[in-house]
Amino acid sequence: MREFEFKMYELPELNSPILVEGLPGVGNVGKLAAEHLIEQVDAKLFGEIFSVDFPPQVTVGEKGLISEVKNSLYYKRFPKKDNDLIILVGDYQGLTHQSQYRFAWSMIELARELGVERIFTLGGYGVGRLVDSPRVLGASSDPMMIDELKELGVIFNEGEPGSGIVGASGLLLGIGKLFGIYGACLMGETSGYFVDPNSAKAVLKVLTSYLEIEINFEELEDKARRVEEITEQIKSVEKQFSKEPSQEDLKYFG
Amino acid sequence: MREFEFKMYELPELNSPILVEGLPGVGNVGKLAAEHLIEQVDAKLFGEIFSVDFPPQVTVGEKGLISEVKNSLYYKRFPKKDNDLIILVGDYQGLTHQSQYRFAWSMIELARELGVERIFTLGGYGVGRLVDSPRVLGASSDPMMIDELKELGVIFNEGEPGSGIVGASGLLLGIGKLFGIYGACLMGETSGYFVDPNSAKAVLKVLTSYLEIEINFEELEDKARRVEEITEQIKSVEKQFSKEPSQEDLKYFG
Amino acid sequence: MREFEFKMYELPELNSPILVEGLPGVGNVGKLAAEHLIEQVDAKLFGEIFSVDFPPQVTVGEKGLISEVKNSLYYKRFPKKDNDLIILVGDYQGLTHQSQYRFAWSMIELARELGVERIFTLGGYGVGRLVDSPRVLGASSDPMMIDELKELGVIFNEGEPGSGIVGASGLLLGIGKLFGIYGACLMGETSGYFVDPNSAKAVLKVLTSYLEIEINFEELEDKARRVEEITEQIKSVEKQFSKEPSQEDLKYFG
Amino acid sequence: MREFEFKMYELPELNSPILVEGLPGVGNVGKLAAEHLIEQVDAKLFGEIFSVDFPPQVTVGEKGLISEVKNSLYYKRFPKKDNDLIILVGDYQGLTHQSQYRFAWSMIELARELGVERIFTLGGYGVGRLVDSPRVLGASSDPMMIDELKELGVIFNEGEPGSGIVGASGLLLGIGKLFGIYGACLMGETSGYFVDPNSAKAVLKVLTSYLEIEINFEELEDKARRVEEITEQIKSVEKQFSKEPSQEDLKYFG
Repeated sequence: MREFEFKMYELPELNSPILVEGLPGVGNVGKLAAEHLIEQVDAKLFGEIFSVDFPPQVTVGEKGLISEVKNSLYYKRFPKKDNDLIILVGDYQGLTHQSQYRFAWSMIELARELGVERIFTLGGYGVGRLVDSPRVLGASSDPMMIDELKELGVIFNEGEPGSGIVGASGLLLGIGKLFGIYGACLMGETSGYFVDPNSAKAVLKVLTSYLEIEINFEELEDKARRVEEITEQIKSVEKQFSKEPSQEDLKYFG
Repeated sequence: MREFEFKMYELPELNSPILVEGLPGVGNVGKLAAEHLIEQVDAKLFGEIFSVDFPPQVTVGEKGLISEVKNSLYYKRFPKKDNDLIILVGDYQGLTHQSQYRFAWSMIELARELGVERIFTLGGYGVGRLVDSPRVLGASSDPMMIDELKELGVIFNEGEPGSGIVGASGLLLGIGKLFGIYGACLMGETSGYFVDPNSAKAVLKVLTSYLEIEINFEELEDKARRVEEITEQIKSVEKQFSKEPSQEDLKYFG
Repeated sequence: MREFEFKMYELPELNSPILVEGLPGVGNVGKLAAEHLIEQVDAKLFGEIFSVDFPPQVTVGEKGLISEVKNSLYYKRFPKKDNDLIILVGDYQGLTHQSQYRFAWSMIELARELGVERIFTLGGYGVGRLVDSPRVLGASSDPMMIDELKELGVIFNEGEPGSGIVGASGLLLGIGKLFGIYGACLMGETSGYFVDPNSAKAVLKVLTSYLEIEINFEELEDKARRVEEITEQIKSVEKQFSKEPSQEDLKYFG
Repeated sequence: MREFEFKMYELPELNSPILVEGLPGVGNVGKLAAEHLIEQVDAKLFGEIFSVDFPPQVTVGEKGLISEVKNSLYYKRFPKKDNDLIILVGDYQGLTHQSQYRFAWSMIELARELGVERIFTLGGYGVGRLVDSPRVLGASSDPMMIDELKELGVIFNEGEPGSGIVGASGLLLGIGKLFGIYGACLMGETSGYFVDPNSAKAVLKVLTSYLEIEINFEELEDKARRVEEITEQIKSVEKQFSKEPSQEDLKYFG
């Protein structure tokens, strides 16, 4: 078994496709956004990726059927546009630093074969506090894309994030650049404490504007509401247990 | 030295064989079951497997003779049945997650060469309490096998075990599925604190019913009795040291 | 992706070049020295080195542009001298011990291709106290170079450093020797607590004397002054908080 | 760089050579014995072994000259005997379990090329107390060698050492056996607290009897005396500091 095994169901002929990556990370922002996009454009599964550096197990799902540990590739044709779409999504990043490099390298080799023109990697940007209206930060290997994305409201700050962009979201851009495929990382602000469908929506809004496609955000908004309800409940429970005695509370002793 | 070295004494022509795996795990249920099956059907050793990811040592046995660290392959022909049998047994699983994937991949490649039709992986399901009549849980890559095994009393629960099936028992099913060889994992309930011949017996009962072969369980039953004796002794010693003072004990002070 | 990927922009024809290495280490002495040398002789970038054993990320720099994690190769021709110069510099050494060996091996293979005659590896020698006039210690694979360097004031002590020379600075000499390319390590004394431009200057003075080239040290001296200012400030703050009560302080209570 | 690089200065034609291994381990018994044997029979260096799995550094020795991290191969011809001798000695075993397997495998491949007939691996057997007259324990892949060595006083106990034989001393026997080259491990009893030249002597006495060669043990005996002197000093210092107050000590208070 090689480090990565690509099981391709099809090698589609695509029109200058744009590759979008959404693997697990801070707030699961990238993964939520990519999965929502797949559903909204009704993208088609065309490949699965297995690795000796994924967790060595299978999971058990519906009715006791097993599922392999894998990432998946989808595509969507837009006959009236300049660019088709490829979406990489899944539950895993490699368990070793070497595998993270080799995964990005293999993906870029496949991207070249499929004629990929541009890459968008999606992720969250942990800010350590609750965020009501998440902004979208960007980083890119291409000065022109920075200008285009600034017009869509994306914020580019020198040296931010200070820790760099770790994992597939960073390496697909870095290795893509080596092979002349440029791209950008879109990072939605998020607390870092919860999965954050609201941040995923902010990221997707930028991406779909850039791609000039229209999608429905209701499902993400529903998920965001449910997460908010749970966090409100937690906050109210915490409040009850930790609150400072108020005037009201002190009356009893008065 | 490659990651896995298969030393084959023979490449037997077999009739649509079924592969049974019993490597170390919770309660050593799978290993005990597979070893008992080998003995009962008088299976023949035909290959040994060495790996750079097994512990780097030899063991010293009878008369000071050394033994290599290895797993072993056995087969048994059943001329009057539809399926012959291959049994994989041994004392080790690979020390790294990569080797667990590569081992399963290599085994499935060999399985294809030998014409394997179906796979059974055997193991224990730790429940954290003593179990008198262990049930057998299952997971499978094949809906049809789930139906067949349900009729033999195997229990299939959605998402159980929650942690998935780790190691060879899971990966042989997952990678087998990639190559079109389907199978099931049979997990005997066990405390997880002791080796559990009684759970091994429960697993073997299901497997031999499925295979329509008859074997003797006396030896497993003997082992189960011996384990029970030891655990009873431990329990009685523990009781003496930890018991709450009874009426009787208090009399002296009365 | 291979363990190391060399992206060569040019394979220059050089005149018996001398290879100088300055990668991160104690007090960043080697890196500071090599970077200063590149700037002073106006050396030209001709290759970049990527590795699966570098940190799996990209960094974000000016204007939000990403930078890959890499080391870099520069050269400088000296048409009137016997030896041209190659300088290896960067921010990383491999994350595993295997990659440190393989990096050195790959570099020596490239060095042979480029006709490298001699190697200088630069580093710091941590002494655990502030050093005003850092001495330069040496170690070499070549008795003749030891004699030459002694005349330039380099100190060679049997068995020093006692811990050996770890990483690229050691292995380039060790593996170079296997292929008949000899060299020396120059280690500037340094506290080990701060980056040390002053120690880098001491190392460069020896190296440029050996190479018979003249460079300007002002910038390193400026950096050294700035580091000194900061350390003075830290010392004075520490003093204020930890000082024993003086006569003056006690008067008030008198 | 491959995992192991063998730099062979010569591929000597040897007469059914016996391979003797003495790498670092408990009490450094094997290494001391092998080094003494090399010196006594005046064996000739014919190869050096480098590895990406040795520590990534060079050491600094006499006059500031660097030394690579390596193991070494020596041979000695005995024209009047049936077997020449090959001795493997050095300061390192691989840093990973995989490299221990691959080292043994590579050595056995070389051993086959050189026509090796038999293997002796030398080591210490830690018993946790000082040993005046160390016995020699054995383990072997060959029942006939067990009989021969028993006659020379070697002790073979079922299942001893209980932890097996770890590292090169075990794996050379295990992998040798796979290729039809049989051998034995000779383990001298030793405390496990000090280097133990006395135990090395015991092991060498058995080996040289088996090989029917005569060597001088003076140097090992000298080393043993020096180690004994140091341990005596330590014991006397410990005694002074930990002794119970004697009658004499108590007088002052009387």
